Amino acid sequence: MTTESSALTIAQLAELAGVSTATVSKVVNGRSEVSSATRAAVEELIRRHGYRRQRRRPAPTALVELVFHALEGDYPVEIIKGVEEVAREHRLTVGVSELPRRHSPDQGWLEGVLRRRPTGIGVIAVFSSLSESQRERLANSEVPLVLLDPADDPGKGVPSVSAGNWSGGLAATRHLLELGHRRIAIITGPDYALASRARHDGYRTALDMAGVPVDPRLAGRGDFLIEGGLAQALRLLRLPDPPTAIFATNDGQAIGVYHAARRLGLRIPEDLSVVGFDDLPPMRWAIPPLTTIRQPLAEMAKTAAMMLLKLAHGEPLPQSRAELATELVIRESTAPPRDPAG
Amino acid sequence: MTTESSALTIAQLAELAGVSTATVSKVVNGRSEVSSATRAAVEELIRRHGYRRQRRRPAPTALVELVFHALEGDYPVEIIKGVEEVAREHRLTVGVSELPRRHSPDQGWLEGVLRRRPTGIGVIAVFSSLSESQRERLANSEVPLVLLDPADDPGKGVPSVSAGNWSGGLAATRHLLELGHRRIAIITGPDYALASRARHDGYRTALDMAGVPVDPRLAGRGDFLIEGGLAQALRLLRLPDPPTAIFATNDGQAIGVYHAARRLGLRIPEDLSVVGFDDLPPMRWAIPPLTTIRQPLAEMAKTAAMMLLKLAHGEPLPQSRAELATELVIRESTAPPRDPAG
Repeated sequence: MTTESSALTIAQLAELAGVSTATVSKVVNGRSEVSSATRAAVEELIRRHGYRRQRRRPAPTALVELVFHALEGDYPVEIIKGVEEVAREHRLTVGVSELPRRHSPDQGWLEGVLRRRPTGIGVIAVFSSLSESQRERLANSEVPLVLLDPADDPGKGVPSVSAGNWSGGLAATRHLLELGHRRIAIITGPDYALASRARHDGYRTALDMAGVPVDPRLAGRGDFLIEGGLAQALRLLRLPDPPTAIFATNDGQAIGVYHAARRLGLRIPEDLSVVGFDDLPPMRWAIPPLTTIRQPLAEMAKTAAMMLLKLAHGEPLPQSRAELATELVIRESTAPPRDPAG
Repeated sequence: MTTESSALTIAQLAELAGVSTATVSKVVNGRSEVSSATRAAVEELIRRHGYRRQRRRPAPTALVELVFHALEGDYPVEIIKGVEEVAREHRLTVGVSELPRRHSPDQGWLEGVLRRRPTGIGVIAVFSSLSESQRERLANSEVPLVLLDPADDPGKGVPSVSAGNWSGGLAATRHLLELGHRRIAIITGPDYALASRARHDGYRTALDMAGVPVDPRLAGRGDFLIEGGLAQALRLLRLPDPPTAIFATNDGQAIGVYHAARRLGLRIPEDLSVVGFDDLPPMRWAIPPLTTIRQPLAEMAKTAAMMLLKLAHGEPLPQSRAELATELVIRESTAPPRDPAG
């Protein structure tokens, strides 16, 4: 192992490798947009000489920037809690911001991050998509980036933390199958959300493995919001042959299903079983308490914060994509169907 | 009016007034611990010469520090949203932290704030109590402080923002009286919380003005948490002569009352009316949707942030205690009692 002081800076590595400092920066920050030959060459140099992140002036406000697609509900609070716990331990400050436009941070946001660069440890972007060029600008400015619960494909080599969405979809659907349900509907999230796609695929696989045909009329597309869950559930429950159970794929949509059932005079779980996804704290206080898939948001946030610290200190990540396990939490919103033949 | 450049700094004012810079700082920051004679003398000097806050180096991370007693539920999110909106407009960063011990920030927290002082605009403390000595240290370091929804008395001259808690308690109870209820119970928050005391007083006054005797057995002391609301509601509803309505004094406790009613087989609102306080976003999705007192948390947060900016720029506050109005929001958890004589 090379000692820290003899290790090379990005500028020295770039000179030795005959590439730009931006390219070396991409390699050490685990970004993708580098040819494999160049990456191999730089990595070989780092193995031989070591890499020393340039020391910056000690900042009075070392800042972990946590950016949300939307500050709404308990989802952000769980994440802030997790990041704040790690930050406090390392005497860092958590800077929280909300994107003016959802999912795609605008230029002003990026300028702010770059302006704060002297004190910024890096950025954790939650359920957000950054464009190729935005990622490139962060990389070129040596601002580490970790995606938390990324909305779409994080891009090759961009570190990310997510939950076992597919396994969660599988577990939710299997739970309903084991109770005896056969007409199981799903309300998905928006199509661009990978998490939604993965949960949907888990649902389909569970049905398929149980020999239950997938009925496309039993799939409704929601928006991960209560309102979308309500509208889709009303449609599904008014079908000539309605479902006996609905996998709502997130907790908000499950609450929407509760309201649809209430409007139609259906009791949960006697007339309709409902499974959510997330297990946000209020769900155990829903009436009836919601059976759901627990997504460990605070743990995911802590993992993202620790990855960001490693990147900020120029340490390698053991894995660039962390996936934390989900877990079925059985409460009172699921029961066997009244008519098992139904 | 004096021009900015001819105005005096704190040091110059202190010299003219023959007092310490800390004392002048207290006066310009609206703190209390100054004799009225000294305050008058300093204020007279400021009127005559003007006051120029010392320019600090422009900070890349101008930081509004938002400190919570607890990061839980939708209450913090509403507040972060409000502060972030003002901060974004002024190109500031919102630093969010949670107090390790509830309500009383420990020493480590204060050291962090003082360490970050070069970039800190000031502190907004939410539902928290700062000790006299902590306030003094912040004042001596010229770190402006605004209390948001202060848990106990903010102390003379400490700027604060709260809601019309007493009026809200009055409006909640009057609504139940107008529906015909006479046995109206209350579940209060903890005794040290001024907001809870004010809501309780509003309840008592509404009963008194309606000529309904206040029955002390109909008052339960909660903790502003769901669990406390549940325990108190179970006790109240098992009384030989149970209430027909409960004013839960916050939304969490109202959800606790919902669960108590469910356990006892009581329907809301047919068998029991419930009024909350706060109107957190999920409450319109409670089953049934909750009648509650709306507390404009995001607006309160914006007001606190704007007060903090004024203090940071050395501008006088139009008022050091802002109180924003609350409002009754009638939904589906309240109805006339079944037996109006009851």
